[in-house]
Amino acid sequence: MMQNKPIGFFDSGVGGLTVVAEIFRQLPDESVVYFGDVGRYPYGPRSKDIILQFTRQDVAFLREQDVKFIVAACNTASAVALETVAAENDIDMLGVINPGARAAIEATRNGRIGIIGTHATIASDSYPKAIHKLDDKVKVFSLACPLFVPLVEEGYQDKQAARLIAEDYLKSLREVKIDTLVLGCTHYPLLKKTIQDVIGSDVRLIDSATETAAEARKYLEQKGLLRSDGKQTRHKFYVSDVPDRFAPVAERFLGRRIDNIIIVDITKY
Amino acid sequence: MMQNKPIGFFDSGVGGLTVVAEIFRQLPDESVVYFGDVGRYPYGPRSKDIILQFTRQDVAFLREQDVKFIVAACNTASAVALETVAAENDIDMLGVINPGARAAIEATRNGRIGIIGTHATIASDSYPKAIHKLDDKVKVFSLACPLFVPLVEEGYQDKQAARLIAEDYLKSLREVKIDTLVLGCTHYPLLKKTIQDVIGSDVRLIDSATETAAEARKYLEQKGLLRSDGKQTRHKFYVSDVPDRFAPVAERFLGRRIDNIIIVDITKY
Repeated sequence: MMQNKPIGFFDSGVGGLTVVAEIFRQLPDESVVYFGDVGRYPYGPRSKDIILQFTRQDVAFLREQDVKFIVAACNTASAVALETVAAENDIDMLGVINPGARAAIEATRNGRIGIIGTHATIASDSYPKAIHKLDDKVKVFSLACPLFVPLVEEGYQDKQAARLIAEDYLKSLREVKIDTLVLGCTHYPLLKKTIQDVIGSDVRLIDSATETAAEARKYLEQKGLLRSDGKQTRHKFYVSDVPDRFAPVAERFLGRRIDNIIIVDITKY
Repeated sequence: MMQNKPIGFFDSGVGGLTVVAEIFRQLPDESVVYFGDVGRYPYGPRSKDIILQFTRQDVAFLREQDVKFIVAACNTASAVALETVAAENDIDMLGVINPGARAAIEATRNGRIGIIGTHATIASDSYPKAIHKLDDKVKVFSLACPLFVPLVEEGYQDKQAARLIAEDYLKSLREVKIDTLVLGCTHYPLLKKTIQDVIGSDVRLIDSATETAAEARKYLEQKGLLRSDGKQTRHKFYVSDVPDRFAPVAERFLGRRIDNIIIVDITKY
């Protein structure tokens, strides 16, 4: 039965687990197959051709695991490669850009939206494009915040250093009076408290992980693909290099223990 | 003439340019070929097999450029792969570990040496091993400081956030009363001022870039391989992915402009 198959997720590393954590919350009966491409992390600074090649391989691996639906839980892959790779495959896929863009449009009152993300996501201009496709009168202000990812990965998200760096980065967005800010990177939800403190409580934060999980749920409901066999869920986690450093960071992102992380040679796909 | 050939350098990215900057200072008549593997950066979190494969390719590329001597200007490659790859090649090579270890032994008075570096360099235990081969009575205290690299790459080395993070990291090394600290990562020389302020002026900092350049100079002198044709130097910089982000960071590391950065498909080597 198609609907009892797992949902597939891929990301360049651990960040996509914030989307998985939301799926666990919103769809607790679904089983998950996650592939974290830690051996080729990060995707952000790489060229379009390389990101396209990596995304094709990630999707080919997940298809081999017989998933019913694929979530590109990676802003870079969603921004740069998803449209092309989705057109090449006969399985439905969802990225993290459109759900975040839609939620931002719904949230804004003054028509001024901020986007923060990695160098690659901001340079790709994907969020402004997705937002302007829905509403071309909205003003979008984009800003790369490259230190946020390493700060989160090293567990510094609540320290004073993170706050100082956030103040430095977000100053320009405060000046342009946005009322909505999209967290355009799967690592940023862990910095939500610091970002909210710095940007001010009158700015609405859009968490693309939450929005992507909500859109996945809506899609599966509409297609009659929600799991219904009543069996226990079985989650599987795959990585493309030694899992030593993946496990502890992954557990912080997911808020639960992971056993049995399997190594895959992704270059063979 | 062998001695008029350039010196080859490779690194996983821009960090190795701190060694090149020292060569420019100590050996201004030498020409340099530099390969920065930005397309596969960082090496630090990868497995030994992958780092070995990458190092073999980096060396094969430099040999094709007809260099007279190869410097592994990368702590991870030096720590994990250099010994193996040097044994496979009939060209002399120098890594950054041994010069730093030797200088630390010469500098210490109380026999207590600290080492800071990336996760991979610290986990490899290469500095303690190299130091203990020279003097097994010295006490070595190792510490990973993973946020230092992104702070330097984003130009945050002199900001308050960098100071707070340095205080956090270096606290334990102050407690164990080291009198010598090895900067075991090619990015760290740019943080020298902050690190010296935090660790205290009584601790001697060993900059492995300076020491490696000095050892390269000594080697070339002894072998009669110093350049002597009196012609103008010609430096070449190669990278394994788009150079857009390489150029500005590289110029900060090198303290001079670089033109003409060439892209190489390193996976073919």
